[in-house]
Amino acid sequence: MATSPPAAAAAAARAAELTSKDYYFDSYSHFGIHEEMLKDSVRTKAYMNAILQSKHLFKDKVVLDVGCGTAILSMFAAKAGAKHVYGVDCSGILTQARTIVAANGFADRITLFQGKMEDLTLPVDTVDIIISEWMGYFLLYESMLDTVLFARDKYLVPDGLMFPDHATLYLGAIEDGEYKAEKLEFWDNVYGFDMSCIRDIAKVEPLVDTVGSDALLSNVCPILDIDLTKVTKEELAFSSTFKLTAFRQDFCHALVAYFDCTFSATHKQLNFSTGPKAEYTHWKQTVFYLEGELACSPGEVIEGELTCKPNALNPRDLDININVRFDGASGSYSKLHEFKLR
Amino acid sequence: MATSPPAAAAAAARAAELTSKDYYFDSYSHFGIHEEMLKDSVRTKAYMNAILQSKHLFKDKVVLDVGCGTAILSMFAAKAGAKHVYGVDCSGILTQARTIVAANGFADRITLFQGKMEDLTLPVDTVDIIISEWMGYFLLYESMLDTVLFARDKYLVPDGLMFPDHATLYLGAIEDGEYKAEKLEFWDNVYGFDMSCIRDIAKVEPLVDTVGSDALLSNVCPILDIDLTKVTKEELAFSSTFKLTAFRQDFCHALVAYFDCTFSATHKQLNFSTGPKAEYTHWKQTVFYLEGELACSPGEVIEGELTCKPNALNPRDLDININVRFDGASGSYSKLHEFKLR
Repeated sequence: MATSPPAAAAAAARAAELTSKDYYFDSYSHFGIHEEMLKDSVRTKAYMNAILQSKHLFKDKVVLDVGCGTAILSMFAAKAGAKHVYGVDCSGILTQARTIVAANGFADRITLFQGKMEDLTLPVDTVDIIISEWMGYFLLYESMLDTVLFARDKYLVPDGLMFPDHATLYLGAIEDGEYKAEKLEFWDNVYGFDMSCIRDIAKVEPLVDTVGSDALLSNVCPILDIDLTKVTKEELAFSSTFKLTAFRQDFCHALVAYFDCTFSATHKQLNFSTGPKAEYTHWKQTVFYLEGELACSPGEVIEGELTCKPNALNPRDLDININVRFDGASGSYSKLHEFKLR
Repeated sequence: MATSPPAAAAAAARAAELTSKDYYFDSYSHFGIHEEMLKDSVRTKAYMNAILQSKHLFKDKVVLDVGCGTAILSMFAAKAGAKHVYGVDCSGILTQARTIVAANGFADRITLFQGKMEDLTLPVDTVDIIISEWMGYFLLYESMLDTVLFARDKYLVPDGLMFPDHATLYLGAIEDGEYKAEKLEFWDNVYGFDMSCIRDIAKVEPLVDTVGSDALLSNVCPILDIDLTKVTKEELAFSSTFKLTAFRQDFCHALVAYFDCTFSATHKQLNFSTGPKAEYTHWKQTVFYLEGELACSPGEVIEGELTCKPNALNPRDLDININVRFDGASGSYSKLHEFKLR
């Protein structure tokens, strides 16, 4: 068995002194959030496979891990032969990450920095590869991609690699009447009382939850396609049209969004999906309930525009407006929905 | 249909302006936490039944609702005939609660105050009944009972009523090997890496989760019995011995704690349990994993002491020490476990 490094006991003692207040101000310092991410094996194995199957790319390279958390990706990169890995994270979890790096014999090849990427100066001018698990709900929630792009523009060599290097956000139409009633109409009659003012707030929030694979009643339509090697921060505030064609007779209660991620620098391209037809991930899907419901017949089209931009008061949050038009046999529909992912 | 009061639209607009940062600092201002509590029908129906079956007690009485949230209990009290109900809560959810009270026609009989109970002065010197849903995980987490006792001592008339008026905390022994491995031993080998320093932190935290009813392998033992009409804040830092007798041949991996609550002022005494054999509640149960495991045979006794006190740095958190002794056919065991509920 590996002997814990001498600092481990002291680090554990410090961690044992943290209170809920500390976790409140730095939620990523609690191990629970990392446990959830690590146990998301779709996520973690995608990175593991992409990195460990790319030893020819990582060998003797300098790697930067943006938002390194427990340093799991940094260790994959070191295992894949990287000359040196720099990991950066704001959170107090770095105390444990340092112990982990040492316990696994990587202390001389992985260096971790606690702080904001934007405020730090790495001991190297350039890196060859950037690895990062930056994706949030609805792909962009929490705006961590901004930090990855900052790091790319400051440190990545020309023709340097990004892991992953591609992400696509999709939109589809779903039947979800029962759950919509449970989440929204619930407030109209709470043990006999009218709490509909809370429904008015609840309907503004997209719901992050799992959608059954049989809920989809239309094709899905890409609304954002990101090339990580080129995209700019400004392009992450985007507007997109969509056109969803129903393939069955059903009621549409909501639109669902999810994303796929691709590692295409690898020998054999790897990707994973967070869609309703794919295996569960901790990102689940993001559901946008519509005002009322659309009675769709096969071949009928739900179309509109979706615009997404960081909230002016808190750029981690997203303001997502969805204009939905439908002209079916059952009647016409045209409504602007204003959502806030917060 | 009830017409929303004129303030409702403005309140909804203000709520729509809140960002995740606001919810971060005032988690009870987000409707989601109230949704979870309201949808806990064991909890909400226990209060509803206790109050609505006590019209003879509430008629023409002045009632105080400590931590009123959405004002659901205040409205039960008004419906039961209370002359006036005062509701107090720190959280921004009071904006919605005011709209709710008005929408249900109680504006003249329910008055809500946003602020700390300790800092407020009610417009009355005394109240006849205090209603409050103050229970946290492990009964005492979040220390809201302190505030209820402050209100009782300041406002409640002699022989005034408390709803509920009794709570009992229990401890039992459980078999939980599979989940213990998933939560603790997991860290020893994370995709091939040693993250055991996180296990050292994780083992200090009791786990709030549901325990199957067949997990119990011993009797349960009361470790704290609270008479809400008499208990003092000081008595909530407590020490108790326990003696758990195994009734089957099994391995004991953990101790489980849960509480029952009683409304005994009612005509027919009402109570509900949050134990592993009772219906699900949002409080679930609280699990304390032991170092190693105890091989128990029927009749063998796990005994010890449990002490619980608010954390010195953050009194919302609880420091819970459990000394466990076991002297079975399989060998002897004696270990002090120090937990932090945070």
